Amino acid sequence: MASNRFGNIFTITTFGESHGKGIGVVIDGCPANIEVSREDIQFELERRRPGLSKLSSPRKETDQVEILSGIFEGRTTGAPIALFIANQDADSSKYESIKHLVRPGHANQSYLEKYGIFDYRGGGRASARETAARVAAGAIAKKIIYPMIVRAEVEDLDKMKALIEEVMEEGDSLGGVIRCEVSHVVKGLGDPIYQKLEALLGFAMLSIPATRGFEFGAGFAAAKMRGSEHNDLYGREGILGGISSGAPIVFRVAFKPTSSIKKPQRTTNLEGKEEVLILPEGSRHDPCIALRAPVIVESMTAIVLADAVLMNRCSKI
Amino acid sequence: MASNRFGNIFTITTFGESHGKGIGVVIDGCPANIEVSREDIQFELERRRPGLSKLSSPRKETDQVEILSGIFEGRTTGAPIALFIANQDADSSKYESIKHLVRPGHANQSYLEKYGIFDYRGGGRASARETAARVAAGAIAKKIIYPMIVRAEVEDLDKMKALIEEVMEEGDSLGGVIRCEVSHVVKGLGDPIYQKLEALLGFAMLSIPATRGFEFGAGFAAAKMRGSEHNDLYGREGILGGISSGAPIVFRVAFKPTSSIKKPQRTTNLEGKEEVLILPEGSRHDPCIALRAPVIVESMTAIVLADAVLMNRCSKI
Amino acid sequence: MASNRFGNIFTITTFGESHGKGIGVVIDGCPANIEVSREDIQFELERRRPGLSKLSSPRKETDQVEILSGIFEGRTTGAPIALFIANQDADSSKYESIKHLVRPGHANQSYLEKYGIFDYRGGGRASARETAARVAAGAIAKKIIYPMIVRAEVEDLDKMKALIEEVMEEGDSLGGVIRCEVSHVVKGLGDPIYQKLEALLGFAMLSIPATRGFEFGAGFAAAKMRGSEHNDLYGREGILGGISSGAPIVFRVAFKPTSSIKKPQRTTNLEGKEEVLILPEGSRHDPCIALRAPVIVESMTAIVLADAVLMNRCSKI
Amino acid sequence: MASNRFGNIFTITTFGESHGKGIGVVIDGCPANIEVSREDIQFELERRRPGLSKLSSPRKETDQVEILSGIFEGRTTGAPIALFIANQDADSSKYESIKHLVRPGHANQSYLEKYGIFDYRGGGRASARETAARVAAGAIAKKIIYPMIVRAEVEDLDKMKALIEEVMEEGDSLGGVIRCEVSHVVKGLGDPIYQKLEALLGFAMLSIPATRGFEFGAGFAAAKMRGSEHNDLYGREGILGGISSGAPIVFRVAFKPTSSIKKPQRTTNLEGKEEVLILPEGSRHDPCIALRAPVIVESMTAIVLADAVLMNRCSKI
Repeated sequence: MASNRFGNIFTITTFGESHGKGIGVVIDGCPANIEVSREDIQFELERRRPGLSKLSSPRKETDQVEILSGIFEGRTTGAPIALFIANQDADSSKYESIKHLVRPGHANQSYLEKYGIFDYRGGGRASARETAARVAAGAIAKKIIYPMIVRAEVEDLDKMKALIEEVMEEGDSLGGVIRCEVSHVVKGLGDPIYQKLEALLGFAMLSIPATRGFEFGAGFAAAKMRGSEHNDLYGREGILGGISSGAPIVFRVAFKPTSSIKKPQRTTNLEGKEEVLILPEGSRHDPCIALRAPVIVESMTAIVLADAVLMNRCSKI
Repeated sequence: MASNRFGNIFTITTFGESHGKGIGVVIDGCPANIEVSREDIQFELERRRPGLSKLSSPRKETDQVEILSGIFEGRTTGAPIALFIANQDADSSKYESIKHLVRPGHANQSYLEKYGIFDYRGGGRASARETAARVAAGAIAKKIIYPMIVRAEVEDLDKMKALIEEVMEEGDSLGGVIRCEVSHVVKGLGDPIYQKLEALLGFAMLSIPATRGFEFGAGFAAAKMRGSEHNDLYGREGILGGISSGAPIVFRVAFKPTSSIKKPQRTTNLEGKEEVLILPEGSRHDPCIALRAPVIVESMTAIVLADAVLMNRCSKI
Repeated sequence: MASNRFGNIFTITTFGESHGKGIGVVIDGCPANIEVSREDIQFELERRRPGLSKLSSPRKETDQVEILSGIFEGRTTGAPIALFIANQDADSSKYESIKHLVRPGHANQSYLEKYGIFDYRGGGRASARETAARVAAGAIAKKIIYPMIVRAEVEDLDKMKALIEEVMEEGDSLGGVIRCEVSHVVKGLGDPIYQKLEALLGFAMLSIPATRGFEFGAGFAAAKMRGSEHNDLYGREGILGGISSGAPIVFRVAFKPTSSIKKPQRTTNLEGKEEVLILPEGSRHDPCIALRAPVIVESMTAIVLADAVLMNRCSKI
Repeated sequence: MASNRFGNIFTITTFGESHGKGIGVVIDGCPANIEVSREDIQFELERRRPGLSKLSSPRKETDQVEILSGIFEGRTTGAPIALFIANQDADSSKYESIKHLVRPGHANQSYLEKYGIFDYRGGGRASARETAARVAAGAIAKKIIYPMIVRAEVEDLDKMKALIEEVMEEGDSLGGVIRCEVSHVVKGLGDPIYQKLEALLGFAMLSIPATRGFEFGAGFAAAKMRGSEHNDLYGREGILGGISSGAPIVFRVAFKPTSSIKKPQRTTNLEGKEEVLILPEGSRHDPCIALRAPVIVESMTAIVLADAVLMNRCSKI
């Protein structure tokens, strides 16, 4: 059911595996006449790149984007925009030794169940590497949503930094929360019933690997409020009846800790027998995936908003 | 963009307003040969009905469902199933007096902005009455997902009851959390990237009026866990890489407090001038919408699962 | 796969059976603020109504449309528009005697194969009565496509009339061709690749029961032309590269003869044994379905164009 | 509106321009576990390749397909399959001299109208080169529809050959008709109302560049038949009520003559002033595009059928 597609009018379809030839995205439905350069896209990809600090994975993903189609003389033409990021630095041989094991937090077992086949190299399609394609598409979406600005960041980052150094020493990992704010919001975005703006945002966020929760406005705290108290937030939650009010929209996304850790872990093999999982020497994983998530959250938010902006062009005669 | 439709293969399209002729739903894509009686549907609607206890609104919605099409000799035929619930007890005259006011927590302002017109009678399309159509469709979805069982309930209900009586006396209202569990889960449901099972569930839940948050598995608590700790939950969160593992799925949905309260409230009229909003004598509202939400949560969950069951038929050759 | 839905942004979903409670349509994605009255819709339905002349079926379908939702104070609100036409004069008992027979040109056998169940009363969902719902939706679509005018008519009608009287006497039926012209065409409608305007029109026409062919511009005659000759038509076929050029669009649709005829016919029962089919006394069928088809062709054309008009709002930034 | 996508479950999204980096396709929704080799795809592409005989364009499109994703160890994995064909032999400089002219039969004018920008090099997105991506996808679709066989051919080919040689000498071109037959048809494919099998086939065929008409079964001839005569075809037209009956399906597609001809032609420039169009020396065009069309017709047919096969898995419980 077109599971690799997102959006109604401004749609993205991503493809590619972690250790295959590369990953890519086709953007269909992008309006013509938007100025886009390769650098605009590369800029966002750099923000996602690992290896930038000692707090992230040392894997060197240079992530050089190539524009395959849809842009002519620096502007979109209305034709589908295909972007491709070739894989490099992908040595899949070291995964051979653990391909028979159930890896906690990984999807090999459920993929095998569903499809009867699994490209296990580096997680194949299940790898978070797919999010690079979302970020590339998000770079273009950000141009459509002007003058709206999307800004995501890790909550409590200073406190987090200390904690992350601590867990790294233990060979462990940590979860985190991303807070995202949309400002200069255009009024009237979103639809009243199933395509409520908050529902579309939640849908987009929960499609990002490793997310466990989404809340907007007063969020879970609203469940403990009285009406008189919550009504004071009226108009300040940014979305009314599924439709943007013009006020800033703030939401939070919970990320689980990275599943791949250096610590030995008890697990089973695919036949169900107990084994101990020790990741191969040289495996490189972020101690806290949330650190690289802001640009992914921003990209998916921009993609939702770009689609909503276009859909809104059809609300009145 | 077909904002009143939900689903890919098993799709529902709802229609109708709070104080119009009635509300309804067309289910398209329902497999043939499912035994369905009017009573099956009515049974679920009764669970949503207000006026059942002193804790809910005294509005008498008899909510009698009529099957307009798609069922022949007690079985679905593969044709679209249209269900209709005529409105009764809908006296919209009393809303005339406050139709010029911005009602905190209500959507009239954003609808006017988006559409340039608003059917203000009882909230029109923005009324939570639309959820009756979802419940009717959910009754049929529940038949498709066999042997899966969906069960939702208000969290901490005993403690809640006492609190609700308290806020009722004050003319105020209260939020709440619904906890939903799917058991006997079929393996392999959901798709890896954008149609992850958790993303579809979150999308569905956040489309229910008055929701403010969604979390599944370890939820927001996962953000504070270490990897070694969260990995112990492996397989027990019910969803791996977007695909059901066969283990029970548990999620929580936050509902804000009812916006319509008896207490006088400061507001503005649609021109922006300050006024005091006092709901018309005889206005009937639930002090805690979460109390009636379990059957709605269950219905949307069943609709997501029914669609996922059908989509999964196409995953292998 | 939502087989009862048509369109991308302006979408129609029809429901209902020939001898059930009625037939209807939900229009989702109709822009707000369009003036629509019940009479506008009824006017188009009258054009489809049988029993108007001695050349059509004497079945008295009064086809009174009821607006169930989406229109408030005479204007569309952006909410889904549900229209319903209750069935009357539908005595299904006489079909009991032939329900075990394969009826040439009818779908009972293929429905049974596909769904394992068939609502045989008057053809159930397979009845051309479903087209009344299309006509009702088309009445609204016609308002969106202003200033475009869609006009369909039976080709060679005078010659046809004489022929039809002839076949009626023989208890036989006749096919026909509908020619449709769209004038005052807006430029830029249609999309270059799969949603070419001609492809959308062909798709719509071939979804009308009893159609066997579609051609536009030079049509099948183009296959025999030389390039120098066909190039002279440049811009005059109305569509260039899938996109409307502004010139009038003309297309033709072939309809087969009515399958239900009074003449006795050899057939088989559903077990494959030969029998003779004699339609029950009092069966009422048009001798030439093409005669009632123009308003259906116009309606589907208007629905395609309304959708294309809205889609085109998103082609440029 | 995702105009570059076709299909419901088995979907293709194509991208790329005639003189850009290449053209490609992403197949989303392909079931896992289908054996596919690069050679399977290349084999079909060779059938479309020009330059094979003196009757076709001498342009050397080697059309080497590259599998970018979705196939692992020779089998589909359920992940999206991306195929790419790099452009070669594409010297766009010679089009500079005529880029200001309206070229009869070409889409530059309508693209400019719609998008405000046009990648004129070799026709850009409007080039029939896009059909190579359809053929690549069709190669995989053909594996899904087993045991159905799709076979298309040019009608009256021997007579055509003589005519083509004649028009080539005159610097002119010729139209043609493709006849396609599907044999060993699976019963139950197609849906009753809008996604009738004939409507889907017609939609697919009319999306192929240069087509002007589609007919199936008795086609336009049915319009002149009597019911008693047409009923004798019962079950032999291959589709009943939109659903395949199991009998072979035959349809015909009309192609216009190639628009690009060597003969000088009167035209206008984009400002409307009359000019004479003489194609640049060395321009290479097929004298009869229909000659290369059979594999394209087969591919689109296979794509429609593959989708219908998967959709049909959801028709019964």
